[in-house]
Amino acid sequence: MFNSTKQCYCKLLFQFQHKLKQTSRACSLRVKEALPESLLEDRKYDNDEYEETDSEITFRFKDLTTNLCSPDQLRTKPDTADLKFGHVFTDHMLKIFYHRKLGGWQKPVIIPFENLSLHPAAKVLHYAVELFEGMKAYRGVDGIIRIFRPDLNMTRMNVSAQSSGLPTFDGHEMSECLKRLLQVDSEWVPHGEGSSLYLRPTLIGIDGTLGVQQSDSALLFTIMCPVGNYFDGNNDAVSLLADPSFIRAWPGGSGDKKVGSNYGPTIRVQKHAISKGRQQVLWLYGPDHQLTEVGTMNIFMFYEDEFGGKRLVTPPLSGLILPGVTRQSIIQLCEQWREFPLEQRSITMGELVKLQKRGKLLELFGSGTACIVSPIKSIEYMDELIEIPTTEHQNPIYRRVRTELQMIQYGHIKHPWAQPIE
Amino acid sequence: MFNSTKQCYCKLLFQFQHKLKQTSRACSLRVKEALPESLLEDRKYDNDEYEETDSEITFRFKDLTTNLCSPDQLRTKPDTADLKFGHVFTDHMLKIFYHRKLGGWQKPVIIPFENLSLHPAAKVLHYAVELFEGMKAYRGVDGIIRIFRPDLNMTRMNVSAQSSGLPTFDGHEMSECLKRLLQVDSEWVPHGEGSSLYLRPTLIGIDGTLGVQQSDSALLFTIMCPVGNYFDGNNDAVSLLADPSFIRAWPGGSGDKKVGSNYGPTIRVQKHAISKGRQQVLWLYGPDHQLTEVGTMNIFMFYEDEFGGKRLVTPPLSGLILPGVTRQSIIQLCEQWREFPLEQRSITMGELVKLQKRGKLLELFGSGTACIVSPIKSIEYMDELIEIPTTEHQNPIYRRVRTELQMIQYGHIKHPWAQPIE
Repeated sequence: MFNSTKQCYCKLLFQFQHKLKQTSRACSLRVKEALPESLLEDRKYDNDEYEETDSEITFRFKDLTTNLCSPDQLRTKPDTADLKFGHVFTDHMLKIFYHRKLGGWQKPVIIPFENLSLHPAAKVLHYAVELFEGMKAYRGVDGIIRIFRPDLNMTRMNVSAQSSGLPTFDGHEMSECLKRLLQVDSEWVPHGEGSSLYLRPTLIGIDGTLGVQQSDSALLFTIMCPVGNYFDGNNDAVSLLADPSFIRAWPGGSGDKKVGSNYGPTIRVQKHAISKGRQQVLWLYGPDHQLTEVGTMNIFMFYEDEFGGKRLVTPPLSGLILPGVTRQSIIQLCEQWREFPLEQRSITMGELVKLQKRGKLLELFGSGTACIVSPIKSIEYMDELIEIPTTEHQNPIYRRVRTELQMIQYGHIKHPWAQPIE
Repeated sequence: MFNSTKQCYCKLLFQFQHKLKQTSRACSLRVKEALPESLLEDRKYDNDEYEETDSEITFRFKDLTTNLCSPDQLRTKPDTADLKFGHVFTDHMLKIFYHRKLGGWQKPVIIPFENLSLHPAAKVLHYAVELFEGMKAYRGVDGIIRIFRPDLNMTRMNVSAQSSGLPTFDGHEMSECLKRLLQVDSEWVPHGEGSSLYLRPTLIGIDGTLGVQQSDSALLFTIMCPVGNYFDGNNDAVSLLADPSFIRAWPGGSGDKKVGSNYGPTIRVQKHAISKGRQQVLWLYGPDHQLTEVGTMNIFMFYEDEFGGKRLVTPPLSGLILPGVTRQSIIQLCEQWREFPLEQRSITMGELVKLQKRGKLLELFGSGTACIVSPIKSIEYMDELIEIPTTEHQNPIYRRVRTELQMIQYGHIKHPWAQPIE
């Protein structure tokens, strides 16, 4: 499939190379804005003069030490075909402590995968002082392992940290540490397109004191797990339950941050959806039942307007939804394609139902790191079942998006979004 | 102070004894409703026939084992005058594991206080699958240690567990385990009125798998810390920041459950209040700026109506606020006093401002286990400072409530709310 369309993609690639460079530079600038000038003046890691003074600001990749497993500790790698998401972990993990009383960030270490030892009053266990990221590394057709847009995850992680009263850090330093972790466990990156190694950077508040206050100690750690396909290896379209009585996020809250608090309260709603025979929850908001997210994904709708033109629409970053890396990548791809307008605006259930009744609703799909894109086949809403023909078209947009992203992720085409790790 | 009013309180006590029994029975019934009949038929713990079959439903106090510290492990008790809330813990802790694959609840154990060993993918660390309770034990004037209304905490804890996809249990069994823990660490219950031993039962999801799903393993643990006064030993009234752009909870969310997710996202807002020179956050909701909670407390307003009558009002249990045990106790006390109406209805900032301008706003105070009641002196709202004369009256209601509750808690009067532990 990839070979036949390769030439076409290469041509497209040249067209938007310039735009991508701009984007990449903008990302890098955003990280720089978050850091003091003194840190930016000298990025050479062989210079020791900041070592003692800047641990409040960031840890450094150059300080990373690695303690490898002994050969008998190495575990057997599972068959990717049988892999359930998030059940098997690699041999090593990354740990970086932060202790305000000890001057801030401590030296990063890569160690054999192990349990965490936490004070039973640790703030993470009582007040959900916790946040995470989801990223993926892919083994390319050329054997090179690539990580997808780590800068975006690191920028978002710092935003989440800021909002949780947890320490921020230089995202570039963390990316370098993650690449080293990937090198150490490179044999865990599965072979075969569709599979990948999922990285879970996590930041938790570990102060062993009760009281709803900022945590003066924190642990930034990363674990990794090989994954086949997020949805049990099944590419089928999913069914949704849309019940306006369940609200995921609200203005003035933290729905746009990747913090633990956005997830725990959704479990009972997800269970409720399953009990009604649906696979995921479509999260609505407001009296006009705006679509916000689906499960833990962003949402896209492809439809035909009153003039017969086709449009892709996704809700805007209003504070209610997570600024997804895949969401942003899809928007950027479509802007490069210049084949149909890409709108960032509210979608209401009223609009969706009207489009569907007129046969103008073409596709509905979720987007996220775990699944890339996930087509939607139906929505149960107000006791009615809305059928959506997402998977019934020839060359649907959701599949084209997935193919394009996979071309980049698996190294079929060179692209700045996919950063080689060695 | 207590002796002079003792006779009066005793008289009042007889008046509402009947009502309290009804309440207590209702609580007990609520717990029973949550349990299957088979469990209720035989409450004798010397009967072993349910041991293997009911671990899905609850653990049992009779299975509790205790592993005491060695003498050299026992720590020095701190001076309660210097105690900061939640910084010093007792020598022992209670732990009860739940593993669905092993049949459910395991046997409760009391062990020396120690760190928890958690899988780095434990659901509590990523998705805030966590909930807790706050309770207090008091050393009475008669030397007897009493725990305050544990049944209400256990009922609420089961409601939180249910909403988090975590296992529920028989609250009575847990109360008995807690009483045993209190016996073991009874020397840690501070002497002197105003001080107490704070209990923190906590339930966390510990499945070591990524993915936003119900946790099939859980840990219910309890740690305890001696406390002086929650607000740094200072009884002064607190100043608040009321900014309608920050929302604590919303309809369709989990603001009425004691889950970690309700706390983490408030830390940045609390920091913002401190940076503006205010001590706590007054949480507003809706276009009419309804008062919902203050800091982590429920809120009460005492005011004079247009006919010169005095009224106590607190927001209703609408799903936006926590059903506080102290809140409920205050309501029950006032219903017994029959001196002024007790209203459970919305309070808006508009109403509060109007009352204050007319000199009709008498008192505003928070209520919670940690502080019992906390008087409020001012609110910064829409760039104006609203001064509240809470502490400027003779015999204010907030102080009368606190005194009455302390009479019960410290055993000045016998009362079913204060359960002796030995």
